[in-house]
Amino acid sequence: MSATLQSAEAIKIAVLGCGTVGSGVVLLLKENADLIAQRLGKRIEIKYVLERYPEKATSLGLGEETVVQDFSRIVNDPEVEIVVEVMGGIEPARTMLLQALRQGKNVITANKDLIALHGKELFEAAQEKSRDLYFEASVGGGIPIIAALKQSLAANRIRAVMGIVNGTTNYILSKMSMEGRDYQEVLLEAQRLGYAEADPSSDVEGHDAARKLAILASIAFGTRITFPEVYAEGITRVSPRDIAYGQELGYVLKLLAIAKEEAPGMVEVRVHPAFIPAAHPLAAVNDVFNAILVRGNFVGDIMLYGRGAGQRPTASAVVGDIIEVARNAMHRDTGRISCTCFEHKRIKPIEEIFCKYYIRLLVKDRPGVLAGVAGVFGNLAVSLASVIQKRTEGDMAEIVMVTHRVQEANLRDALKILEGMSIVGEIRNVIRVEEEAGMG
Amino acid sequence: MSATLQSAEAIKIAVLGCGTVGSGVVLLLKENADLIAQRLGKRIEIKYVLERYPEKATSLGLGEETVVQDFSRIVNDPEVEIVVEVMGGIEPARTMLLQALRQGKNVITANKDLIALHGKELFEAAQEKSRDLYFEASVGGGIPIIAALKQSLAANRIRAVMGIVNGTTNYILSKMSMEGRDYQEVLLEAQRLGYAEADPSSDVEGHDAARKLAILASIAFGTRITFPEVYAEGITRVSPRDIAYGQELGYVLKLLAIAKEEAPGMVEVRVHPAFIPAAHPLAAVNDVFNAILVRGNFVGDIMLYGRGAGQRPTASAVVGDIIEVARNAMHRDTGRISCTCFEHKRIKPIEEIFCKYYIRLLVKDRPGVLAGVAGVFGNLAVSLASVIQKRTEGDMAEIVMVTHRVQEANLRDALKILEGMSIVGEIRNVIRVEEEAGMG
Repeated sequence: MSATLQSAEAIKIAVLGCGTVGSGVVLLLKENADLIAQRLGKRIEIKYVLERYPEKATSLGLGEETVVQDFSRIVNDPEVEIVVEVMGGIEPARTMLLQALRQGKNVITANKDLIALHGKELFEAAQEKSRDLYFEASVGGGIPIIAALKQSLAANRIRAVMGIVNGTTNYILSKMSMEGRDYQEVLLEAQRLGYAEADPSSDVEGHDAARKLAILASIAFGTRITFPEVYAEGITRVSPRDIAYGQELGYVLKLLAIAKEEAPGMVEVRVHPAFIPAAHPLAAVNDVFNAILVRGNFVGDIMLYGRGAGQRPTASAVVGDIIEVARNAMHRDTGRISCTCFEHKRIKPIEEIFCKYYIRLLVKDRPGVLAGVAGVFGNLAVSLASVIQKRTEGDMAEIVMVTHRVQEANLRDALKILEGMSIVGEIRNVIRVEEEAGMG
Repeated sequence: MSATLQSAEAIKIAVLGCGTVGSGVVLLLKENADLIAQRLGKRIEIKYVLERYPEKATSLGLGEETVVQDFSRIVNDPEVEIVVEVMGGIEPARTMLLQALRQGKNVITANKDLIALHGKELFEAAQEKSRDLYFEASVGGGIPIIAALKQSLAANRIRAVMGIVNGTTNYILSKMSMEGRDYQEVLLEAQRLGYAEADPSSDVEGHDAARKLAILASIAFGTRITFPEVYAEGITRVSPRDIAYGQELGYVLKLLAIAKEEAPGMVEVRVHPAFIPAAHPLAAVNDVFNAILVRGNFVGDIMLYGRGAGQRPTASAVVGDIIEVARNAMHRDTGRISCTCFEHKRIKPIEEIFCKYYIRLLVKDRPGVLAGVAGVFGNLAVSLASVIQKRTEGDMAEIVMVTHRVQEANLRDALKILEGMSIVGEIRNVIRVEEEAGMG
């Protein structure tokens, strides 16, 4: 095959942004070019890179003529079949991708912020022109969870999705658990190592995980769920003492993203620290690794595990999408898998969920106090599974309790009453316990 | 939508065999019919079930007119778009599927024996007519490993595939490890529980796993590998004592299916008991669960975990394929992903692999014997990582050694020499050690 012929036959793409992920995509397409051409039957050619700093692209071996600063050159070039967005952030990504789709381009994005907030309008634009909108890299880095939910597991009614989808917080909690260290100290270390950003709030407040959960739950349950609809609680209040008490009780602490449809038509979507049994498959997922467990009504429990971030794993997901979309384009079969949000399901308010709870309280250390506390819970139908009196602090005692499965509203009412009681010094922490066995 | 219209628009399929998996497929298509119709945009209708005992199908709610005994009725009916083979065994499945493909039907099969032995001719028949041949259920039950390798991970050069792909042997080894029980005793229990067949040889000799590995390795490395080319060693020689020594050394024993391409163009494919570090993600995969770890040059290590067998998980995989193939058929885009064996790579003879080895020997219990044994290994470039003298049996002693990474041929030569030495009473077991860290 002559070089000219190959070039004439190549699928031409444009890459928006040449940062960490964009560079990874360029590197992968170069390093594995022959392999991909063999698998796809055509070469993939980067015709444009949209990038303010040309040397970011040229240093990777791309020609200067490839680098453009003007998006209109890309969107108006009829040769460009696929636009790959790896800039991140809402704008200008949103406007560019809408433009691209309306011009009949196929779009691939790694942008979880965008999909979790503006997925609907993007999908509508794609559908209007029968074009592809793929976003595997937006959740779980190289883990092929979107394809699994949209295709391989499509025969199943999905009951639940539970995952560790934020590497930064999993790194912090793993270190705190294994080394008994403080949150602040480990956060600083994570920042030094580049695992946490200078402003870590999106990670440690659970917002990053909530965006990913919005995307996963929308696909799993076939209803549009956006980022603001996901309940999110971060890990900033977790103390080594909670982790240690949990370990005594046989639990491991993880920041979990949980989506369930227990009653048909009503979904719960929540991100928060959770105790899970030490034997749960998610309990062994440590450091920056991610894992997502999917429960389907036929497949049972399936877990996918891998690196949830990083240049090369994320590039693997983006280029996996490029190959798939290129194949669709070659077969004039784009738009074959479009938006799957066919229904309008209700989102359960957090107060209505049923859960087990771990509660750590400081109370007066004298006879009858435990009975008083237990009485408050009992009056609100919060039954206790175990109560452990732990240690005295002067004339106070720290107690740890784990409830049975109760409604969160009742628990909150009980805590409010306890807060006002003279025998209660402080409600030190409340952590949800997800105890249903995994891999059932 | 009227029933007639729906029926006229449905994708019509034929199911060959109504045994455990076939019944699962019928049940799933019934239970999740509306959901699947929503996701696909069309209903799926079982027009025929090929089954000798009609009540197997009619008891699931299928009409009598659905059940046929004559395959020609299926293959000659132009309405049938997809033939789903869930009978198992080589014949008559092979002949029927070749006929179906040649008549322009799309084919889905759960038949690992067939794909691992006759994949090539089936793919050629499919390719000739641009039809689909899907086989997700042939490996790992409901785990979407085939789709992951063929599509989601397609951007990667695959370095290795390592998996626990046989539930029966994993159940037996898990029980032996946790309860210190004998192989024979646990096998009998597994047979009672229905986890092992009356004739367990295909499972316990590693042949079932070897078939699955032939399929996985063919896709991973893009070269056709058939069942007889896979080196297979079973678990029948494993003793609780080996497992206990391994645990002391920090290892867990698993029947692993391993495929690697360390030097380009040369692949190793082998199934055998292997010690892996207790912290390895595959070490936590217990009972009848399966898990497959894939190492790609960009994605790093990815692991997929779930139920590797059973009626409902297997049906999930088969119907996932049905939905995908139906979509291809609706879009006149079948044959889009065909055979991926583009190359002819060599298979490394087992003698040429490099590995660490655990060796348990009975030797004379007297000074100088250890030095004599070590000398034999040293002369053949088999260097020892650790030697543990374990216990005396009369005037003999049992010793356990673990080698560094050495070539298997050298190890075998050393063992042959040791066997002929008067100081050696018995070579009790030799087990490969796969120590490279997972999830790198």
